[in-house]
Amino acid sequence: MHRVYNFSAGPSTLPIPVLEQVQKELLNYQETGMSIMEMSHRSKTFQDIIDETKSLLCELMNIPENYEVLFIQGGASLQFSMIPLNLMHRYKQAAYVHTGSWSKKAIQEAEKIGTVSVVASSENDRFTSIPEINRTLLSQEIDYMHITTNNTIEGTRYVNIPETGEIPLVADMSSNILSEKYDVAKFGLIYAGAQKNLGPAGLTIVIVRKDLIGAAHSSCPVMLNYETYSKHNSLYNTPPAFSIYVTKLVLQWLKEQGGVQEIEKRNYKKAAILYNFLDESSVFTSPVHTTYRSLMNIPFTTSSNERNALFLQEAKKHGLEELKGHRSVGGMRASIYNAMPVEGVQTLVNFMYAFEKKYK
Amino acid sequence: MHRVYNFSAGPSTLPIPVLEQVQKELLNYQETGMSIMEMSHRSKTFQDIIDETKSLLCELMNIPENYEVLFIQGGASLQFSMIPLNLMHRYKQAAYVHTGSWSKKAIQEAEKIGTVSVVASSENDRFTSIPEINRTLLSQEIDYMHITTNNTIEGTRYVNIPETGEIPLVADMSSNILSEKYDVAKFGLIYAGAQKNLGPAGLTIVIVRKDLIGAAHSSCPVMLNYETYSKHNSLYNTPPAFSIYVTKLVLQWLKEQGGVQEIEKRNYKKAAILYNFLDESSVFTSPVHTTYRSLMNIPFTTSSNERNALFLQEAKKHGLEELKGHRSVGGMRASIYNAMPVEGVQTLVNFMYAFEKKYK
Repeated sequence: MHRVYNFSAGPSTLPIPVLEQVQKELLNYQETGMSIMEMSHRSKTFQDIIDETKSLLCELMNIPENYEVLFIQGGASLQFSMIPLNLMHRYKQAAYVHTGSWSKKAIQEAEKIGTVSVVASSENDRFTSIPEINRTLLSQEIDYMHITTNNTIEGTRYVNIPETGEIPLVADMSSNILSEKYDVAKFGLIYAGAQKNLGPAGLTIVIVRKDLIGAAHSSCPVMLNYETYSKHNSLYNTPPAFSIYVTKLVLQWLKEQGGVQEIEKRNYKKAAILYNFLDESSVFTSPVHTTYRSLMNIPFTTSSNERNALFLQEAKKHGLEELKGHRSVGGMRASIYNAMPVEGVQTLVNFMYAFEKKYK
Repeated sequence: MHRVYNFSAGPSTLPIPVLEQVQKELLNYQETGMSIMEMSHRSKTFQDIIDETKSLLCELMNIPENYEVLFIQGGASLQFSMIPLNLMHRYKQAAYVHTGSWSKKAIQEAEKIGTVSVVASSENDRFTSIPEINRTLLSQEIDYMHITTNNTIEGTRYVNIPETGEIPLVADMSSNILSEKYDVAKFGLIYAGAQKNLGPAGLTIVIVRKDLIGAAHSSCPVMLNYETYSKHNSLYNTPPAFSIYVTKLVLQWLKEQGGVQEIEKRNYKKAAILYNFLDESSVFTSPVHTTYRSLMNIPFTTSSNERNALFLQEAKKHGLEELKGHRSVGGMRASIYNAMPVEGVQTLVNFMYAFEKKYK
């Protein structure tokens, strides 16, 4: 069967054993005589799937008892609105750290609901680093502080999670959830679109401390209120059932790999293969400050647009797909999420090495 | 392969050839070397899928040029909020027809945003009919009028679509879109969750007249504004790609069946098989007024809860699944959407006949 190495930033590559299992039981899920896509979300069979998905996530991330896991639709972009609608209830103010394209959108949506203070920004650094937070700007009269743990487009990552004391820390982990160990207790709320490290697009996971649920205004749309999901076990209306099912299989696969601890080691190894090559290369460079380099999304470039175009064209011929960088950054980008095997990164680096020898 | 007849109200049965095609290309979509679940939504391949889905829907429903087709997440329940947020802009008032559980929820959400006048209700009739609209209540100072063309839980359906003149008519068609011919030009907006006649859960289709887009307040969350979807061809953020792809296959299947015209005939035939049996039966009865009977969702009951329970138990043994009625109505319900073959309904009726002979 024809398969390529797919470096797409999302939707992105999934583990082959997961895809094979989906394929196998597509018309008849566990002898129920129907596809998972055809199954009532009120059935015992689906109830087991959603419960198991939740319990696997709690186990893998070591989520404390005082947190809820919610399954929502609409992507991280809907969370940009849901977070202020649910959490900006006391001071109607929040602090945001601005680290790239996604935090910009998060800030724009929050500003529709309350007051946003940008307490740190790496804009002057063209988002190639993670800024220090100016603690004097971090007033106590804010409802939460928001960060983006990994910046998919710019290829940066928080190495240390900021301490915010009593202020709930909210994190967009869309592009690096489950890729490295995090202490969930440090966060008030974690959210992530599924289509990078979890499963197919159409599902967003929200992990939220229970005391932060229930403060939305009574005029909040029912589907934008975390309480709706919490009260109904994410089954107030029909959930994205197929995406939840595939996510369950991905979490099982991750557990079989040895969990987050093992995948973190593998992710460091994969990133090192590519960064070590970039640091030695005479043709390719990485634009990101060494300290803040992402383990998941690695932008790189040659010295000219023509050479970049040639690289992308030749890479495609070698079964190395979706390496084009985001238009706001240019050049190339390799997204190497959990499901990308070490061999995929090694194959890419071997190809880059050959390209370098040929064209330098 | 083990398959049952699945009478679930949604998610519900899909055409077998569609499931087989999904299965076949699950790990390698059209020699791209990746699954549709792994594919960038910015790729040419996915662009073709979304364009083709839209164009098939326009063809099958004969959608006029001055309408847009939008692909949204969150189910019909999110539309209950999006509709007033986008359409209640002039008078902040709308008229709703109350015909059951779903219209109730639609009214509740609209009341958070503006003034709702319930211009007709079948509540006194226990929602077993569709009420006449009191035209004197239909002031000209409303932004739209809302109806539910088919009531999934109660098993009723509009036989004639009300004329509203200049007032935009908004219709929840979640449970009967594409099941019978509608003149789209009579509506300002039509919406439907995918999980009944379209594809897997996680996708909502909105068909909206272009002049109704763009009037949402500037504080409207970006993901709740129809303009966001219209401007970006439903690709502002990652869409529920897999659900769109399966919907495309279902629409192709429907076209191969002869389109809406042919499926409507088949749906009348299927419904007639069941209603004719119910009307002659000495054991089973239909609670719905003859004129307003749904073609898609057919509630029925015996004279006792014990007998209903026995029926459901025996039906299951015969591979007839998900026949339990909604808790608010009780008894049984057979949902016989487009993908349910005539043989499925005939098998159910044969079984009901045998049950009647055995237990009457």
